[in-house]
Amino acid sequence: MGFDRLIEGIVKTQNPTVAGLDPKLEFVPASIKEACFAQYGKTLEGAAAALLAFNKALIDSLCDIVPAVKPQAAYYEMYGWQGVKALYETIAYARKRGMFVITDGKRNDIGTTMEAYATAHLGATDVAGTSVEAFGADALTVNGYLGTDGIKPLAHICAARDKGIFVLVKTSNPSSGELQDMKIENGVTVYEQMGRMCENWGAELMGQYGYSAVGAVVGATYPDQLAEMRAKAPHTFFLVPGYGAQGGGAEDAKNAFDQNGLGAIINSSRGIMCAWKNQGLTEEEFAQAARAEALRMREDILHTIGEISVNKND
Amino acid sequence: MGFDRLIEGIVKTQNPTVAGLDPKLEFVPASIKEACFAQYGKTLEGAAAALLAFNKALIDSLCDIVPAVKPQAAYYEMYGWQGVKALYETIAYARKRGMFVITDGKRNDIGTTMEAYATAHLGATDVAGTSVEAFGADALTVNGYLGTDGIKPLAHICAARDKGIFVLVKTSNPSSGELQDMKIENGVTVYEQMGRMCENWGAELMGQYGYSAVGAVVGATYPDQLAEMRAKAPHTFFLVPGYGAQGGGAEDAKNAFDQNGLGAIINSSRGIMCAWKNQGLTEEEFAQAARAEALRMREDILHTIGEISVNKND
Repeated sequence: MGFDRLIEGIVKTQNPTVAGLDPKLEFVPASIKEACFAQYGKTLEGAAAALLAFNKALIDSLCDIVPAVKPQAAYYEMYGWQGVKALYETIAYARKRGMFVITDGKRNDIGTTMEAYATAHLGATDVAGTSVEAFGADALTVNGYLGTDGIKPLAHICAARDKGIFVLVKTSNPSSGELQDMKIENGVTVYEQMGRMCENWGAELMGQYGYSAVGAVVGATYPDQLAEMRAKAPHTFFLVPGYGAQGGGAEDAKNAFDQNGLGAIINSSRGIMCAWKNQGLTEEEFAQAARAEALRMREDILHTIGEISVNKND
Repeated sequence: MGFDRLIEGIVKTQNPTVAGLDPKLEFVPASIKEACFAQYGKTLEGAAAALLAFNKALIDSLCDIVPAVKPQAAYYEMYGWQGVKALYETIAYARKRGMFVITDGKRNDIGTTMEAYATAHLGATDVAGTSVEAFGADALTVNGYLGTDGIKPLAHICAARDKGIFVLVKTSNPSSGELQDMKIENGVTVYEQMGRMCENWGAELMGQYGYSAVGAVVGATYPDQLAEMRAKAPHTFFLVPGYGAQGGGAEDAKNAFDQNGLGAIINSSRGIMCAWKNQGLTEEEFAQAARAEALRMREDILHTIGEISVNKND
């Protein structure tokens, strides 16, 4: 249920990190782009082919040492439906290589529409009696601004199909506090209120390692709030952006974990995709550089949290 | 700038409504589906072809009397990248027929990622020196939970390319109050705070009819809050869901308008798409039924707000 498969992957690889696949065309080496443009022209189709080739090389290089990938939907939509096709193919490829796939879409809407999003990204679509996975991810990021109606359809699919969601609680960006840090009438902040809602939504979706299928996004750039929410939302698994390019370090991210080194997965996107820049390598060596950076990041985090283990609560 | 083109379309048609294009396959008549499945099989490609044919017939039937359409991204994503291609083709077709297109995606993310969403839906993507519109809508719905960072990239594109955004303020669903109605430390509700942010974000993006490029989503199902926000956010154009299938009527929606009958556009999705059910017609007559319903809805709303006119503030 929920994040059990992800947790098992984290324990197996001893690596609580997820590689963000946010492939802007400028990150893709010239040789890949030239080959794709030669085949498809300087078109969205050509760009999408380049993104997919880039992603596949990263996945091949990371899949035995990193348990999960997180493609960010925006960077695929930017290249049109052709880019969205590359998102679909990236998800399928990563799952085939044994990785847990978190589609970062931050979707949100009223209940009937959320059923459609849940079906699209985590479920299966009925086409005249045939059931087809439209995108087929393992988890989806969502925004809880609309309240329970917008979460319930996701909860049903999480229970039925062994999937998870991450609800935005305290985001990593500089202006996240404008709304999220405001205190509401019951004396708690907006982000804490959202964390309480995650605990409530997850109560009937508990996995076997103490965490529910309703996770939360809490940024490494706010380490105090990360520690606060770890204590206040003990059954909520965290997806933690902000490590690396956004400025958060392992000492900040440490606050996301419980005493077993569980409870969170730390994202790195540009830090892994563009690692060659910091390693004195060429862009053509991006995949081996990504692997080296993923190993460095694992050491960095494990150094602060120690060995990761599970205590089953059967 | 911003919603000027939309306002001009509303005045020309004397119709402040937008047709929601949320085409679930079950809404599409059997004859269209059979033809598409015969050509493409019972596949996502076949389903997407059926959605596009359905949408085109609706657009043809509505484009001289309804100024805008609002495709809901979820119902296209549900049919995979093939469905997302149908979204692209729907947008292009509606624009060709002179309609203002609002992509309802409720997108949200940190600044760098929001640049990608803004480029995807409202801007143009650079592919090795060639500029291509990935989706090419006129406006996009967005969620402001992340604060100013997540809105600024959209504001830049609104200014540069004559586009608009609608930020979720008070949504139409039953549980919208769980977070949105909470009072925050300055004594205002979360939705009012979001409305204030819309006024601030829009201040440098004013159009010539008194409304900025930063609009807001406020539901017809909460008429008191609609009247409150109309008074408190006088430069913010409203997209109003909740009329019809969700229970809101013209008397409720009336509160969204200013004294000139401007300031808002009312959405109807299922009410228009599935109008044949209430008119004693067959599903094959969906397009003419949609037109009749759109005309009825126009009378219903104009009856309460009177003739729509503009006062330019030059």
